[in-house]
Amino acid sequence: MNKLSFASDYSSGCHPLVLRRLTETNLCRSAGYGTDGFSEAAREKIRQCCLAPEADVFFLAGGTQSNAAVIGCMLKPWQGVISAETGHVCGHEAGAIEAGGHKVLPLPHREGRLAAEDVRRLLEQFRADEAREHLVEPGMVYLSQPTEYGTLYSLRELTEISGVCHAAGIPLYVDGARLAYALGCPENDVRLSDLARLCDAFYIGGTKCGALFGEAVVFPRHDTVPHFFTMIKQRGALLAKGFVAGLQFDALFTDGLYEQIGRHGVAAAERIRTGLSACGYPLFIEAPTNQVFPVLTPAQAQALRQEIDMTFWEKLDEGRCVMRLAADWATRDEDVDLLLDVFRRCADQG
Amino acid sequence: MNKLSFASDYSSGCHPLVLRRLTETNLCRSAGYGTDGFSEAAREKIRQCCLAPEADVFFLAGGTQSNAAVIGCMLKPWQGVISAETGHVCGHEAGAIEAGGHKVLPLPHREGRLAAEDVRRLLEQFRADEAREHLVEPGMVYLSQPTEYGTLYSLRELTEISGVCHAAGIPLYVDGARLAYALGCPENDVRLSDLARLCDAFYIGGTKCGALFGEAVVFPRHDTVPHFFTMIKQRGALLAKGFVAGLQFDALFTDGLYEQIGRHGVAAAERIRTGLSACGYPLFIEAPTNQVFPVLTPAQAQALRQEIDMTFWEKLDEGRCVMRLAADWATRDEDVDLLLDVFRRCADQG
Amino acid sequence: MNKLSFASDYSSGCHPLVLRRLTETNLCRSAGYGTDGFSEAAREKIRQCCLAPEADVFFLAGGTQSNAAVIGCMLKPWQGVISAETGHVCGHEAGAIEAGGHKVLPLPHREGRLAAEDVRRLLEQFRADEAREHLVEPGMVYLSQPTEYGTLYSLRELTEISGVCHAAGIPLYVDGARLAYALGCPENDVRLSDLARLCDAFYIGGTKCGALFGEAVVFPRHDTVPHFFTMIKQRGALLAKGFVAGLQFDALFTDGLYEQIGRHGVAAAERIRTGLSACGYPLFIEAPTNQVFPVLTPAQAQALRQEIDMTFWEKLDEGRCVMRLAADWATRDEDVDLLLDVFRRCADQG
Amino acid sequence: MNKLSFASDYSSGCHPLVLRRLTETNLCRSAGYGTDGFSEAAREKIRQCCLAPEADVFFLAGGTQSNAAVIGCMLKPWQGVISAETGHVCGHEAGAIEAGGHKVLPLPHREGRLAAEDVRRLLEQFRADEAREHLVEPGMVYLSQPTEYGTLYSLRELTEISGVCHAAGIPLYVDGARLAYALGCPENDVRLSDLARLCDAFYIGGTKCGALFGEAVVFPRHDTVPHFFTMIKQRGALLAKGFVAGLQFDALFTDGLYEQIGRHGVAAAERIRTGLSACGYPLFIEAPTNQVFPVLTPAQAQALRQEIDMTFWEKLDEGRCVMRLAADWATRDEDVDLLLDVFRRCADQG
Repeated sequence: MNKLSFASDYSSGCHPLVLRRLTETNLCRSAGYGTDGFSEAAREKIRQCCLAPEADVFFLAGGTQSNAAVIGCMLKPWQGVISAETGHVCGHEAGAIEAGGHKVLPLPHREGRLAAEDVRRLLEQFRADEAREHLVEPGMVYLSQPTEYGTLYSLRELTEISGVCHAAGIPLYVDGARLAYALGCPENDVRLSDLARLCDAFYIGGTKCGALFGEAVVFPRHDTVPHFFTMIKQRGALLAKGFVAGLQFDALFTDGLYEQIGRHGVAAAERIRTGLSACGYPLFIEAPTNQVFPVLTPAQAQALRQEIDMTFWEKLDEGRCVMRLAADWATRDEDVDLLLDVFRRCADQG
Repeated sequence: MNKLSFASDYSSGCHPLVLRRLTETNLCRSAGYGTDGFSEAAREKIRQCCLAPEADVFFLAGGTQSNAAVIGCMLKPWQGVISAETGHVCGHEAGAIEAGGHKVLPLPHREGRLAAEDVRRLLEQFRADEAREHLVEPGMVYLSQPTEYGTLYSLRELTEISGVCHAAGIPLYVDGARLAYALGCPENDVRLSDLARLCDAFYIGGTKCGALFGEAVVFPRHDTVPHFFTMIKQRGALLAKGFVAGLQFDALFTDGLYEQIGRHGVAAAERIRTGLSACGYPLFIEAPTNQVFPVLTPAQAQALRQEIDMTFWEKLDEGRCVMRLAADWATRDEDVDLLLDVFRRCADQG
Repeated sequence: MNKLSFASDYSSGCHPLVLRRLTETNLCRSAGYGTDGFSEAAREKIRQCCLAPEADVFFLAGGTQSNAAVIGCMLKPWQGVISAETGHVCGHEAGAIEAGGHKVLPLPHREGRLAAEDVRRLLEQFRADEAREHLVEPGMVYLSQPTEYGTLYSLRELTEISGVCHAAGIPLYVDGARLAYALGCPENDVRLSDLARLCDAFYIGGTKCGALFGEAVVFPRHDTVPHFFTMIKQRGALLAKGFVAGLQFDALFTDGLYEQIGRHGVAAAERIRTGLSACGYPLFIEAPTNQVFPVLTPAQAQALRQEIDMTFWEKLDEGRCVMRLAADWATRDEDVDLLLDVFRRCADQG
Repeated sequence: MNKLSFASDYSSGCHPLVLRRLTETNLCRSAGYGTDGFSEAAREKIRQCCLAPEADVFFLAGGTQSNAAVIGCMLKPWQGVISAETGHVCGHEAGAIEAGGHKVLPLPHREGRLAAEDVRRLLEQFRADEAREHLVEPGMVYLSQPTEYGTLYSLRELTEISGVCHAAGIPLYVDGARLAYALGCPENDVRLSDLARLCDAFYIGGTKCGALFGEAVVFPRHDTVPHFFTMIKQRGALLAKGFVAGLQFDALFTDGLYEQIGRHGVAAAERIRTGLSACGYPLFIEAPTNQVFPVLTPAQAQALRQEIDMTFWEKLDEGRCVMRLAADWATRDEDVDLLLDVFRRCADQG
C-alpha cells in the first residue's frame, strides 16, 4: 500500500494544461537556448503581469541554480548576501553561495522573515566599523516569499526592506520558489507588480508550482546584470532546449493558471490546518500558505509516518518534533480526507 | 514560410514514446531528487546495457553542467583536464571549467579526435619537467564520442587512450552528448559496455537524443566520486523532480529506443551527405554520424540560408565557409527531400 | 609628538637577533622557493621543538594566507570549517575562506574559545539530519591559540576538542598568529609538542612574534596535504626567496628566542593590566597574554586616544567601549610607564 | 666546494642600501597594512618616476600573487586574459589564473613577445563569432617586460598593443618582475612614464631587483580597481607589516638605485654573452637583458652543471638543450670571470 504523499510540493509531474501545451507543440522546431518564440511569448506575459515592460526574463532549471546565478552575478567579489538564518541559501543548498565565493551573512528570523530593522542595523554596523575594509561588505539582501516556514511578507514589510536596501544602494532579491502559493493566498497583499517595483531581481517558481521543472528569473530593469546569458552558460544553467521551459511558463501565465494553482494548494493546506487543529494538534507556526507544520509527540510521529509521507522538520523538547506537510496544485480532496482520518486516529497517542 | 530546420539536433520536444511515458505517469507521486522508483528503474536498465552492475548513475539537466560537475569533481585542485583543442569544454562552454578553478590543457585534434600518442607525450613531458611543481598537472582526459566534428573513435583508438590514461593513473571521461548517433552508426564499434569498461566516467546524452532535457552521468565503478549527490546540489544541478529525467531515460532505454533514435538521425544525415555529394558540394570532413559539414561559396551560403536554418561553422579562404547541418530523431524524410531540392537549386551558384 | 604605540603587535621591524641573521647572510646565494639550506635548518629546529621528526613545514608570508591555504587544502569541496564566531577566519579576513569556496560554520564563543561540547553537538546534529546531503558537512575545526581575545586553551580543553575531532574523523587546525605569547605565558600548559600531537596542522606566527613577516605552517604528520607546495604556488603564497623567511625562523628557534619574545610581550601586558586595574579601569576580559582590553567611558576614550594609539574593539552600552592594547617583543618599559601615566591621568574622566 | 650561482636572479638577500634602510628603521613603530608613512613616501616616489600623480600603488609580496590579484580583479567573470603562450601566467604559475575562475587565452609568441596584430585578430574573431555568447570573451592583455626570454618590447610595439587594447575597450597589464633589467638596458626605450601612460596596470618587481621580497602594483589612474585593498586582504596578499615592503621600495626609488641595479645585472649578462659567443656557444635567443640562454651539447651540459648552478630551459634536437643563466644586482665580476673560465674549458666537448 502506498503512503499518502504530503512530503513535498514537487512530487507530481506538471499541471495538465502545461502537459497539454508540451504535447501540442512537441514536434515543432524551435531555436535553442531560449531564443525561440514560445519563450519570448512567455516572457511577454510575465512582463505584463509584472507591469514591467523592460524586464529581462530567463528560464533556468531549478531554484538552487537560480539563487546561485543571481546572487553570484549581483554581488561584487568583496561582498556577501544578507539572509535570514532560516533562508534556503543559508543552510539547505550545500554551500552553493560559498562555492561561488561569497559569504552568507545570517540575521535572526521572525517566523522565517527578515526584519527591515535588523537589516538596517547590520548595514550601519558595517559602515561604522573602523576595520570594515577587512570585513565582508553586505552587498545584497535575499529573502523568500513565501518563506521557508510558509509565512508571508506583507506589502508594508517588503516595502520597508526595499527602502532600507535602496537607501544603502544594495539590491533586493526575492526567492519565489513557492510564489504561486503566496499569490494564491487570501492573506497576501504583495502582487507580482509589487515585486517588480520593489525588488531588483526575483524568480517565479515553476518546479513547485505546476511545471515539470523551471524557474523564471526576472530582472525588472533591463540589463541589471550584464552578460547574464553567458554567465548562466558558464554555470551550466543554460538549457539547450530553452523552449521546453518557455512553453511551460507560457501555459502557467495563460488565463491565470499560476494563481489558480496557488489557490488550490493553499485551500488544501487550509483544510489540513483546520482539521489538525480540530483534533488538537498544535501547529508550530501559523503560516497561511501551502505548508503545514504540526507538532507531534514521539508516538504520534511514529504512527503517522507509517501511513503518511511527510518531512521531518526539527526536534523540540521531550522528544516532540515538528513535521512538514505540503499541499500543491495536484493535491486531491479525497487524499486530504484520508490524511485527516489518519491524524484523527492518532490524535490520542501520547 | 518557415525555413527548413537543420540548425541543430535540439530543436524538437521529445520522442513520442518519451512523451507517452511522461503523460502516463504525470499524476503519480514520487520522491524527490532522483530517489524515486522510476529513476531507479532507468538506472538499472542503463547498468544492464553497460554490463556495469555496480555503476552509479545520476541524471543532470544538461551537457555543460554534466561536464563541469564530473570534471570539477574528478580533478584535484592542482590538476587540469586534457582535451582536444576542438573539445566542447575547451571553447564552447563559456569558461565553465576554468570558472570551477581548473585549466583545460589543449592538444591538437585529428578530425576532432585526440591521439593516444599526443596524450602520452604530454604526460611524459610533464613528468620530465624539472619545474613541474610550478605547473598544472594533467589530471584527466576528456573526449567526445561522437566528436564535435561528428567523427568517431574506433574501439582500438579508445582502448589506446584508455591504456595511456590508466598507465598514468589518471581517469578518462567521455562526453556523450550525441552518443545515440554513435551507437546508431554502422561504422561504430564502441558499445556502451566498452565505454563502461574503458572509461572512468561518461554521460549518455538525452537532450540531443530524444529527451526534453537530461543527461545520464555514469560512473561504471561505484563511489568513483564521493558525495557526488551533494556536489551536484552545490552546483545547482540536482533536479528536485529528478523523476522527470529518470522517466525519460527509462523510456529511452526500453526496447532499444535510444539506438533506434540514433539510427534514424544517422540515416537522415547519410541521405543528406549522399545528396550533397551528388550535386557537387565538397564536405569539410567525412564524418559518419548525424552532422554534415558542407563547404559553400559565398553565393551558395547566402542563397541557402534564405531557406534553410543551418549553423555557421567556420571561415575558409576565398570567402568560402563551412556550415553544419544536423539531423536527429525527429528529422522527416520529406524535409530531407526539400533540403536536397534547395541545395540542388543552389549548386551552380558562385 | 608621536602617540604611544600600543595599537598592534605588528608595528616594529624584527627582533635584533633576526635582523642580525639576515644581515650576516645577506650576500649568500641560496636556492629558491624554500629549497635552501637555511630553510631546511629552520624546519629541523621546529621539528625538534615539536617532537615531530616527520613534520612538513612551510614558510608563508602572512596569517590570512596561511589560514586560507591550510583550510582550503584540508577541506573537501562539500565541507565547511567550524570556528568560534569570534574566530579570525569568521569575520576578519574579508571572506577569504568563502572566496576559496567553503562555508565557515560559526559556533558561540566562550571568551574567544570553542567548547568541545559545542563542537560535538554540531557534529551530531549534522549526522542526525535526514537532509544532511543537502547541507555543508562540518569538515574540520579551526581555533586560535591565543584566541582573538587573548585567552588560552588549556591542555585539557585542547585535548578534549582534539578528541572530538578525531572521533569524528575530521582534522583540527590551530592558528598560532600570536603563539609566542601563549608559549611565553606563565598560565599556559600547551607546548609546541602538544600542538603537534593534538592537531593535524597549525602555524607558528612570525609576523607578530619577532619576524619582518612569515608564518611557519606545520603538518606534524608527513604528507598530510598532498602537493601543498604546488597549492601555495597556485595561491600566490610561495615565496621566491623562501630563504628570507627560513632565516628568520632559524633565528627565532635558536636559543629559545621565540619563547623569550613571548615572555617579554606577556610581561609588558601584565604590567599594563595591573596598572590599569590599580587605577580603576575594568577589563572586558581576563586574558593572560599580550593583549589588554580595558573598558572606557566616552570621555576616557576620547582623552586617551589623543595620546595613545590603540584599537577600537567594540561598543558596549551607555557609550562605553572596549579598546585593545597590544604589547610585543619590542615594547619598552619606559613606554609602559608613560602609558600608565596617561591612563592614570584620565581615570577620573567620565 | 660551492657551485657558481647563476640559476636565478632571486638567490641573494637585498641590495645593501635596502638593508641599511631596514636596519635604520627597524625599531620605528608604524601603522599596519601599508597605511604607514614609509609606504606613502615610497608611493610618492613611484608616482613621480611614473609621472602619474594620481596613481594607486600597492605593495604585495610576490609576482604570482600580484598577477593573480590584478588579473582576477580587472577581468569580469565572463572574460579571460590574453597572454603569449610563453607568458608566466600561462604556464608557470600552477594554474593561479584558472584557480581564480578565468581562462588564459594563449597567442603564439615572437621571441617571448605578443604581436599587436595577433591580439587584434583574436579580438576581431571573437566579435565576428555568431556563438560568442558561448565563448570566453578576451577581456584584457597580459605581457611581461622584459619577457620570459629576456627580450624587450620597444616603445613602438608597446604603443601598438596599447592602441589595440584601448580601441577594443580592454585593459593592458604589464608584468614587470624583472623591470629593473629593462630600465637598465641600453637598448630599452620604454620608461616608467611610458608604462604609466600606455598601461592600465603594471607591477614594478622588487624580489628579483634588489628587495628581500615585494612588488609594487601600480594603477596609473586612481580607483581603476575598486576595493583593491579588501580584495588583496581576501587573497591573503595584504601584508600586516606593509611598511617592510614600503621601506624597501623607498630605498629602491631613492637616488636612482632601481635603474642602477638593472644596469649592473645587464652589464654582467652582457659580459657573459660576449664571453660565451667568443668561445663558440650559440645563444638560443638574442636577448639584451639580464638572462642568457646558451645552447649546449649533452656533454657540455653535463660538465658545466658540475660547476655551475643554472636552470634547465628546454630540450632541442640531438640531445642539445637550452640553459638559462641569470645575472642580477649581486653578481660579482670575479664570479663572471670564473663562469667564463668554466665555459671556456668545456667549449670543446662534443
